[in-house]
Amino acid sequence: MPNILRREDIAFLLYDFLDLEELSRLPHFADADRSVYDAILDSVEKIAEERYQPHAQKLDANEPEFDGERVYIIPEVKEALDAFVEAGLMGASFDADQGGLQLPYLLQTAISAWFSAANWGTSGYTGLTVAAGNLLAEHASDAQKERYLRPMIEGRYFGTMALSEPHAGSSVGDIRTRAEPRDDGSYRLFGNKMWISGADHEMSENIINLVLAKIPGGPPGVRGISLFIVPRYLVNEDGSRGDRNDVRLAGLNHKMGCRGTVNCVLNFGDRDGAVGYLVGAPNCGLQYMFSMMNEMRIGVGLSAAALAATGYLHALDYAKDRTQGRRLADRDPQTPMVPIIEHADVKRMLLQQKAYAEGAMALCFYAARLADEKRAGDPTAQEKATALLDILTPIVKSWPSEFGLRANEIAIQVFGGAGYTRDYPVERFYRDNRLNHIHEGTRGIQGLDLLGRKVPMNGGAPLRALVSEMQATVHAARAVPAFADMAEGLEAAINRATETTLSMGSKAEQLGQEAYLANATIYLDMLGHVVVAWIWLRQALVAHEKRAGGADDALCVGKIMACRYFFRYELPAIEAQCALLADMDTTCLDTAAEAL
Amino acid sequence: MPNILRREDIAFLLYDFLDLEELSRLPHFADADRSVYDAILDSVEKIAEERYQPHAQKLDANEPEFDGERVYIIPEVKEALDAFVEAGLMGASFDADQGGLQLPYLLQTAISAWFSAANWGTSGYTGLTVAAGNLLAEHASDAQKERYLRPMIEGRYFGTMALSEPHAGSSVGDIRTRAEPRDDGSYRLFGNKMWISGADHEMSENIINLVLAKIPGGPPGVRGISLFIVPRYLVNEDGSRGDRNDVRLAGLNHKMGCRGTVNCVLNFGDRDGAVGYLVGAPNCGLQYMFSMMNEMRIGVGLSAAALAATGYLHALDYAKDRTQGRRLADRDPQTPMVPIIEHADVKRMLLQQKAYAEGAMALCFYAARLADEKRAGDPTAQEKATALLDILTPIVKSWPSEFGLRANEIAIQVFGGAGYTRDYPVERFYRDNRLNHIHEGTRGIQGLDLLGRKVPMNGGAPLRALVSEMQATVHAARAVPAFADMAEGLEAAINRATETTLSMGSKAEQLGQEAYLANATIYLDMLGHVVVAWIWLRQALVAHEKRAGGADDALCVGKIMACRYFFRYELPAIEAQCALLADMDTTCLDTAAEAL
Repeated sequence: MPNILRREDIAFLLYDFLDLEELSRLPHFADADRSVYDAILDSVEKIAEERYQPHAQKLDANEPEFDGERVYIIPEVKEALDAFVEAGLMGASFDADQGGLQLPYLLQTAISAWFSAANWGTSGYTGLTVAAGNLLAEHASDAQKERYLRPMIEGRYFGTMALSEPHAGSSVGDIRTRAEPRDDGSYRLFGNKMWISGADHEMSENIINLVLAKIPGGPPGVRGISLFIVPRYLVNEDGSRGDRNDVRLAGLNHKMGCRGTVNCVLNFGDRDGAVGYLVGAPNCGLQYMFSMMNEMRIGVGLSAAALAATGYLHALDYAKDRTQGRRLADRDPQTPMVPIIEHADVKRMLLQQKAYAEGAMALCFYAARLADEKRAGDPTAQEKATALLDILTPIVKSWPSEFGLRANEIAIQVFGGAGYTRDYPVERFYRDNRLNHIHEGTRGIQGLDLLGRKVPMNGGAPLRALVSEMQATVHAARAVPAFADMAEGLEAAINRATETTLSMGSKAEQLGQEAYLANATIYLDMLGHVVVAWIWLRQALVAHEKRAGGADDALCVGKIMACRYFFRYELPAIEAQCALLADMDTTCLDTAAEAL
Repeated sequence: MPNILRREDIAFLLYDFLDLEELSRLPHFADADRSVYDAILDSVEKIAEERYQPHAQKLDANEPEFDGERVYIIPEVKEALDAFVEAGLMGASFDADQGGLQLPYLLQTAISAWFSAANWGTSGYTGLTVAAGNLLAEHASDAQKERYLRPMIEGRYFGTMALSEPHAGSSVGDIRTRAEPRDDGSYRLFGNKMWISGADHEMSENIINLVLAKIPGGPPGVRGISLFIVPRYLVNEDGSRGDRNDVRLAGLNHKMGCRGTVNCVLNFGDRDGAVGYLVGAPNCGLQYMFSMMNEMRIGVGLSAAALAATGYLHALDYAKDRTQGRRLADRDPQTPMVPIIEHADVKRMLLQQKAYAEGAMALCFYAARLADEKRAGDPTAQEKATALLDILTPIVKSWPSEFGLRANEIAIQVFGGAGYTRDYPVERFYRDNRLNHIHEGTRGIQGLDLLGRKVPMNGGAPLRALVSEMQATVHAARAVPAFADMAEGLEAAINRATETTLSMGSKAEQLGQEAYLANATIYLDMLGHVVVAWIWLRQALVAHEKRAGGADDALCVGKIMACRYFFRYELPAIEAQCALLADMDTTCLDTAAEAL
């Protein structure tokens, strides 16, 4: 059993939970239908199983190496990426006039989930290329798109996003890389970048680095940052590969997990300056970068969810197969041992993983559908999707990172000692997933974004939009007698979260911004739990309806039980968090550094 | 800064919190005093810094290798172990008449913590030898002690504990290794053992494996298990090393962490049988093994706590040094960046780690003191210590494993991307610590032990003894006005835990044992949180008194703030757990395997 993901779970999300077929009737997506989607998913499943998963362990044990001249990566990675490109998947979500397939981002999300689960290290290269491509599609000039984006969509060029510097990771306004204008309209870049994934290897004809830098004389801080295309090789007028640009690999980072995705320290302008081309207007770089941040952060949450989901399937399989001990009622040591799935605590660990992994996955898919509506829906749908994405994005990035990691931790526990060895992949998933709370904005930054920016935004409109959606689900669940307790539970949780938010807002004026934000991370967890409870109840309602229709009973019962688990075992945790938050507790803030 | 552990924290635990000097007035320990202890700790600190810590990263990157003939381990490990032995530390807690120093186990615990924090992989070899030695000291014959235990205490022989088999890890009653009696009173063992740490290497003259096996014809299950000494090399009458015994290394396990401690699959009796010597009476092996289980499980908790504590110190140091961003009130991007410790969320992450790491460490040290009282106290003290250890041992094993790991996870987060690289040790601590929920009885087994065995034991006497101790602390805290809220909080938590336990007990008759134990792991977490809140309040009371005396203000304030953090941010989580437990929720039990 490959145990990458379960196709029926993905189909449930796409077609039952999120009605991809309805989405595909929007004019923007009208060229494809379910038969096309299913054929693509067939191909994805096959490539993931045959080309991605088989070398995942080898890649982890043989991470990219740099000998001072070039980077060596095991050849299976390029073979897998070639298969991805040949299947046309690099262009899945790009517009047709740019050479893409113009498919919904929701479908792209299912594709990404599959490859992340099969081999996260290898999937990094295409994920980064798509993210960089999205940025160019949105903000580059037509000539730039023709020269750089089209070969990316064709899979000949790969892309990177180069924001961080050794002294400035989270504090992007403090970057020092400078871009000096030249008379021909190009720039020369000088500086160092850190943590740049996919920035040096020999697997693509070129690498297009999207680099944040400061043009001398611009405003200080985040308002003086511009975005540049800095290719590894210059591109000639006719599109052929030109000279090597003055961007050099200074060294590789050696990580705990996600080892297959090469992670680089880059020097720009060691010689006469790295040639760069300004994207859009000067000093708008951060704004451009952030225009794609929703999708990038959904992507992080999705990776976390995918790693959790595949870990869960591996643990489930092991628990059905491995025998150990007997049921509690059976005191006779001479009866055969039972599969460990029959032990109550193992079942609890499996249901907990399922609730986390499938809850996280559903949340990310839901956000991807919102991104489609924001892009291609009618104006009312766009407005609503924008508001929902505003408030949900920090949660979509963080909740799967937190609870997906927990799921991977539990998967190891189901395997016992075996799970702690490198003979099984669950320890690798755990190491891989630890990254997701760090990159693309740390957990702490997501908390500040949620409570400091998104909650007060537009007089609270995004949060109101979310509450209204959640209340609609409460209403729908009330109509199902078996779900009445969960309808009540969700309503109480929504009210508690809303009261807490209001109480914090009103105290903030008196106590100040620092006290208001002191427990922002806990607010992020709390609201995340309410949101995932809601996502579970929506899924359970769909499962209930499907069940009434007679199909897929085990799948539907599983969704409903995972939902019940979440409401019984997880959601009640918010009460203690809300009490702390409403008190505006400043114990941490009040502790002097020297007392730590 | 080595940042292994802080000597002042250890001194606070030993002398202020647990009054080692009072303990040392017991006749059994009367040969030593504080000056002796401090000299030993000086030596421990020096060896840990100079011999253990420097090769920890190298050992992790170069784990033991087996070429089919012998095991290769980097030479620094043996050099470190030699220094440990030369300092006489192998015999620290053994009785003088066996060649030991007869020091309190509490001091031994401080020593172990230091080496575990400095280099857990290397410290494994001596930890296992001491554990095996304790078992021999308790149950072996005088001749066996002279032949096997004395050279262990001298550091010439190392020891192992060989319980698990490939098909039976947790289910020890199902082991198949058989021991056939021979006319000379010895046995020949045939079978396979798995997960045996330290069982093959060239760093000691001999390795004494303590092996569980079944004598043919004995009772089935756990009542038919006997304990054998199976040395790697037979020992001649004169104590010199004889022939190689028929115990062979079949292979090594390759782990996610704790890579320095070689972990073996062993074959016994591939040729004519491995020579073994029965310890004590036949069929009493598991009982003997369990007589040492308290200390072994304290040792696991202690390792988890030590890894958490050293991770915390590394994170604290980094947070004071690394600059990034500005205070929230400072909107001017041209002011200098501040050390990240000034950010509220970083402070929260540090205080959370401190509360977990130092709470876990204090709990383990407290349990070690109980072990001393059980061994050497007067009959009343012995009885009380026995009861307290009965109820606390599963918590001492599990709580640090759970929350120590969480602390290591947060330490990585404080470092950000840097923490995810192998350039810093925090990712190693995290990988190492993941083991502690698995070995010496998994988390699930600790939950069953606590709720299924220890809570009902002797009509509830152990739990009553614990409650009575905790109430004494409530009483003491009430006398300190600044602690009144915490006294109240602990009392409420004790009452809630007690009511929940009673309610579960009364429902168990009706609902059955399987429902009673279905959420045993959650009960373990819940009672663990109450216990650690109590341990923190006891520490805070001591710190309060010390502060009144004028000394060590930063240390004392830190303990009090960590205690406050625990009461505000952590303890309230038990309410939701108690509600679930009291309901005897069976959602997990009710979920069919095919719906997962």
